Amino acid sequence: MVKTIEWKGNSVRILDQVRLPLKEAYLDCFTYREVIECIVKMNIRGAPAIGLATALGIALGVQGIASQDREFFDREMDSICQEFFRTRPTAVNLVWAINQLKETKRNHRGDVASLKEAIKARAVELLEADLAINRQIGKYGEPLIPDGASILTHCNAGALATGGYGTALGVIRAAHEAGKKISVYVDETRPFLQGARLTAWELVEENIPATLITDSMAGYFMQKGKVDLIIVGADRVAANGDVANKIGTYSLGVLARAHSIPLYVAAPTSTLDLNIPTGQEIPIEERTHEEVTSIGGIRIAPERIAVANPAFDVTPNEYVSALITEKGIVRPPYLQGLRRLVQGD
Amino acid sequence: MVKTIEWKGNSVRILDQVRLPLKEAYLDCFTYREVIECIVKMNIRGAPAIGLATALGIALGVQGIASQDREFFDREMDSICQEFFRTRPTAVNLVWAINQLKETKRNHRGDVASLKEAIKARAVELLEADLAINRQIGKYGEPLIPDGASILTHCNAGALATGGYGTALGVIRAAHEAGKKISVYVDETRPFLQGARLTAWELVEENIPATLITDSMAGYFMQKGKVDLIIVGADRVAANGDVANKIGTYSLGVLARAHSIPLYVAAPTSTLDLNIPTGQEIPIEERTHEEVTSIGGIRIAPERIAVANPAFDVTPNEYVSALITEKGIVRPPYLQGLRRLVQGD
Repeated sequence: MVKTIEWKGNSVRILDQVRLPLKEAYLDCFTYREVIECIVKMNIRGAPAIGLATALGIALGVQGIASQDREFFDREMDSICQEFFRTRPTAVNLVWAINQLKETKRNHRGDVASLKEAIKARAVELLEADLAINRQIGKYGEPLIPDGASILTHCNAGALATGGYGTALGVIRAAHEAGKKISVYVDETRPFLQGARLTAWELVEENIPATLITDSMAGYFMQKGKVDLIIVGADRVAANGDVANKIGTYSLGVLARAHSIPLYVAAPTSTLDLNIPTGQEIPIEERTHEEVTSIGGIRIAPERIAVANPAFDVTPNEYVSALITEKGIVRPPYLQGLRRLVQGD
Repeated sequence: MVKTIEWKGNSVRILDQVRLPLKEAYLDCFTYREVIECIVKMNIRGAPAIGLATALGIALGVQGIASQDREFFDREMDSICQEFFRTRPTAVNLVWAINQLKETKRNHRGDVASLKEAIKARAVELLEADLAINRQIGKYGEPLIPDGASILTHCNAGALATGGYGTALGVIRAAHEAGKKISVYVDETRPFLQGARLTAWELVEENIPATLITDSMAGYFMQKGKVDLIIVGADRVAANGDVANKIGTYSLGVLARAHSIPLYVAAPTSTLDLNIPTGQEIPIEERTHEEVTSIGGIRIAPERIAVANPAFDVTPNEYVSALITEKGIVRPPYLQGLRRLVQGD
């Protein structure tokens, strides 16, 4: 299986998702700022993968702190964490990863050299745990996929968005591995084309029957009765079950409701943000207008046109049929269900 | 104002919409088959403009019929009409244009030379009438646009899709000319990007405030309360008011309903097809998959992925708040309203 991100001795290796599917190229980051650049430019993307890149990036960054003074180290690490925090606002997994490593730091009693090792070890542990988490999501979600189902997915919530296997695509993979005859409609997901470039690539590699469509065609195929269910990932889930995910997910929620099609959201518990009551408090990233006005460096729009480019939207909990996590499936009412899920730790 | 299509002595000049907005280039067609190629390759597109290109193309074609024998001429002209008929199946304006010229032929009593002139004159007349028709649509539609309205439009139903001024954009132009402070959200309209390339260009040229978005963002801005109404064109309207229009229109209809936003359809009566009872009988064109997998010649999807590319969808009449035609506004129930409109001829 393709490795989205890995620790390589004294560097972090990232599969360059900007160049996929045309080229399978890797970026070797020797400084944490190079990892930050990969996150900002979306060479690596997808909420869980952003969390993992943050963890590995911070671990890489702290290796370079020269002083053996613990107080100095703590300040430097906090400042590195702050730089990662500022990269992308919506995916809460980034905050989760920072908190995980800060906890390792807080609990560590040895010297700075051993703390550096502990932080690196914890980051690699998080990466390795993610694959198991996704397989668990797949195991819980698989029974929701009927044999013969036609599934619609949006953006990429696959191996490329995670430490491997994927969340939404993990459920699809699990159904395929269980021998179910499924097929997938892949929304291309403008403007960044994660569906056309990444999800289509993953499904072709796995030989899972898939059809690429533009985002505007999803409703057409629902109207024709060709979509049995929708499954997507998430960038942040609020305490009430509101889901921030790639722009366009909300429209799919409204369309799913109008056609009585279930919409499932698959995400690890690191995507839960129970500190915020509703999705209205989730910051929505506005990205560069170039993503909309140019494709592959080719200008498609007139020069003087204004542009909006919100990268995410919030799907209210009433449109979400179930949340699939590595700890089990949560159904409405989400406020209670999510609290129980997390308190069951 | 830009001329989408015009008769030039012994040729038909077409503004090349494939190259817009980067380049304002014209294609001079000296044979009817060159006009057909322009329709098929969408150098000219938009239901009314397809009708006009068909009329001018047939007129160009019949000029080349060598024999003075009327029976021979009729057969040749019918065969030319048949070639145009096969170019694009959804826009009924093409059939309308063929019927207009066949009527001219049927009613003509002079020799073949004068018949050729009559057909050319009729085609040019249809072109010139279209501008007036669009201004009339604008006049009827303008009162539906409140001052300060934020309007969403999809695809291009502008001057470029017609003989000038536009249908949906004609209504927007009329509101702007009336001094109303309006602003427009422009769906980019994948895969062919008529919104990003053509509608954005027309609105920038007119200095009408406009913001380009991807198709998947329309729901987001409706959710935020930023869209007051939606206005689109049509490729064919069935007797019951079902509307075939650019793929994605149906999704906008569902979203408009969910947000209690009116959806208006602006189209000339040449877009009405009262011979078919419902939209289910409207043929939906499936276009080349290249439109989805490549943009500007750059491949965006993996080689082995399957693709679907329906170019239109059908919005059921229940989602259409009103039809705006050059003969007036029709509201539900459409079956009676449309019949009255046409019988009022």
